[in-house]
Amino acid sequence: MQDFLKEYEKRRELIEIYLKKFLELEGVSSPLKEAMQYTIKAGGKRFRPVIMYETYRICGGRDEEEIMPPACAAELIHTFTLIHDDLPAIDNDELRRGKPTLHKVFGEDVAILAGDALFIYGIEVFLEAKSEPEKILKALKSLVKSLGSKGVIEGEVLDVKGVGMKPNQNYVKKIHAKKTALFISSCLEIGSIFGGANDEEIKKFKEAGFEMGMAFQIQDDILDIVGEKEKLGKEVRKDADKMTFVKVFGLEKSKEIARIHIQNAKKILKELPYNTKFLEKTCDFIISRNY
Amino acid sequence: MQDFLKEYEKRRELIEIYLKKFLELEGVSSPLKEAMQYTIKAGGKRFRPVIMYETYRICGGRDEEEIMPPACAAELIHTFTLIHDDLPAIDNDELRRGKPTLHKVFGEDVAILAGDALFIYGIEVFLEAKSEPEKILKALKSLVKSLGSKGVIEGEVLDVKGVGMKPNQNYVKKIHAKKTALFISSCLEIGSIFGGANDEEIKKFKEAGFEMGMAFQIQDDILDIVGEKEKLGKEVRKDADKMTFVKVFGLEKSKEIARIHIQNAKKILKELPYNTKFLEKTCDFIISRNY
Repeated sequence: MQDFLKEYEKRRELIEIYLKKFLELEGVSSPLKEAMQYTIKAGGKRFRPVIMYETYRICGGRDEEEIMPPACAAELIHTFTLIHDDLPAIDNDELRRGKPTLHKVFGEDVAILAGDALFIYGIEVFLEAKSEPEKILKALKSLVKSLGSKGVIEGEVLDVKGVGMKPNQNYVKKIHAKKTALFISSCLEIGSIFGGANDEEIKKFKEAGFEMGMAFQIQDDILDIVGEKEKLGKEVRKDADKMTFVKVFGLEKSKEIARIHIQNAKKILKELPYNTKFLEKTCDFIISRNY
Repeated sequence: MQDFLKEYEKRRELIEIYLKKFLELEGVSSPLKEAMQYTIKAGGKRFRPVIMYETYRICGGRDEEEIMPPACAAELIHTFTLIHDDLPAIDNDELRRGKPTLHKVFGEDVAILAGDALFIYGIEVFLEAKSEPEKILKALKSLVKSLGSKGVIEGEVLDVKGVGMKPNQNYVKKIHAKKTALFISSCLEIGSIFGGANDEEIKKFKEAGFEMGMAFQIQDDILDIVGEKEKLGKEVRKDADKMTFVKVFGLEKSKEIARIHIQNAKKILKELPYNTKFLEKTCDFIISRNY
């Protein structure tokens, strides 16, 4: 795992260089500029860009100017979803990535609008990809489909409406699929589209990404119970009223389900004619991480 | 003006047919689906789609499958900005398009998320345009540029931060340019891109659109003072603390500035080698309307 973390860090550092460049936001007026930068500068695993970049790389992609705009766009957009999620009207969180949440620092009005701006800017950055127009459109369609009214946002609505509801296995699976798995699945899909994989391979990457995403969100639920605030950079044991995997299946069964998703993901990855070793280790990382 | 309104209505009705289709949202779960539909179903002038469609048409565009997705996307996205604008943390409005605002009916959490979903869905719908990939990308770049951190959202941040500030001519002009004029300018740009205009012509449409947009927002400020709640479908005299054109320049001077913007717009339109009569009449409508 130590070797993997070193390899992960190399990729994360490359993402940081590009993220920093995209976050210069020259000409954007205060306080919008600072608000857009704040939550991203606070850090994070950069999980989505890392796996998108890695997928691109192993498929044979070699041009950073092609993959870094979409990869960074994924982080900008992921951060937008966190900012809106943290708002008083939604999860009412006070801590994110080890810092006070955006609305605590800039006010609720600016936090709503900075979230909006980050999302729109994510699309702008995505469109800077140096690639064939057909590929950009195909990849962008995958992204927006995973985010919207049948993706992340639907997942968040199901999440807030699930508060206080009776535990329901299908409901919690749907939340996790929509809120997290589809977006992570789309990151692998986008990486493989730009990397030049064929349609059948793209489909497999997408399936593997979905399994990884399910495990990722289940592990998040587990960490809300067994994790430490300092490592996670956010409050723990705050999902008491929510419908989480742990609540519906219990802690041990949740761990087992996450393991099964990871086994599935690794099996699909192994079938691909690429060097998927790093992605397989990423699978193990998803369910062994404590942050 | 009566003939113009009839012509306007014909175009608006065509937009409604497509909007209705795009708003079916099959498979989207409740209450997100109903929340996404609510503010759009409440009606509206559909100003942005109408002028985009008209620009496309006069440039020679003939395929509704090419222009209706971007035209309807403009309305979906405009509605997203209204929904977030109306939130308690921002303008705290209770009435929109003659109905209680979205957060009054569905709650603040769902209103924030439905706004997000409408924006994302707007991009999805935009991407359905049956056109060349190069055109779609060029047009989409124009749209997101007009919306984000140097466009609508920046304008809204300037707007909320302008509350209680000393009247400032440059500041209020900047709010109006960002919040309204750039988006309307982009609608003409997009219509002319899909319609097949050349680069010089596209630039002129864009300039004319910017002048129309400035006048449009100044007229909104004027109507907040002299308009009627029943016609406007929203509360009036609610911008007392805001930096509006009327506050900075006074009522008569604001009317004059709006007239000058409209003169500029019409002059630019007349220079174009297309039948711009309807757009010119739209210019007159912008500053004569009472809704």
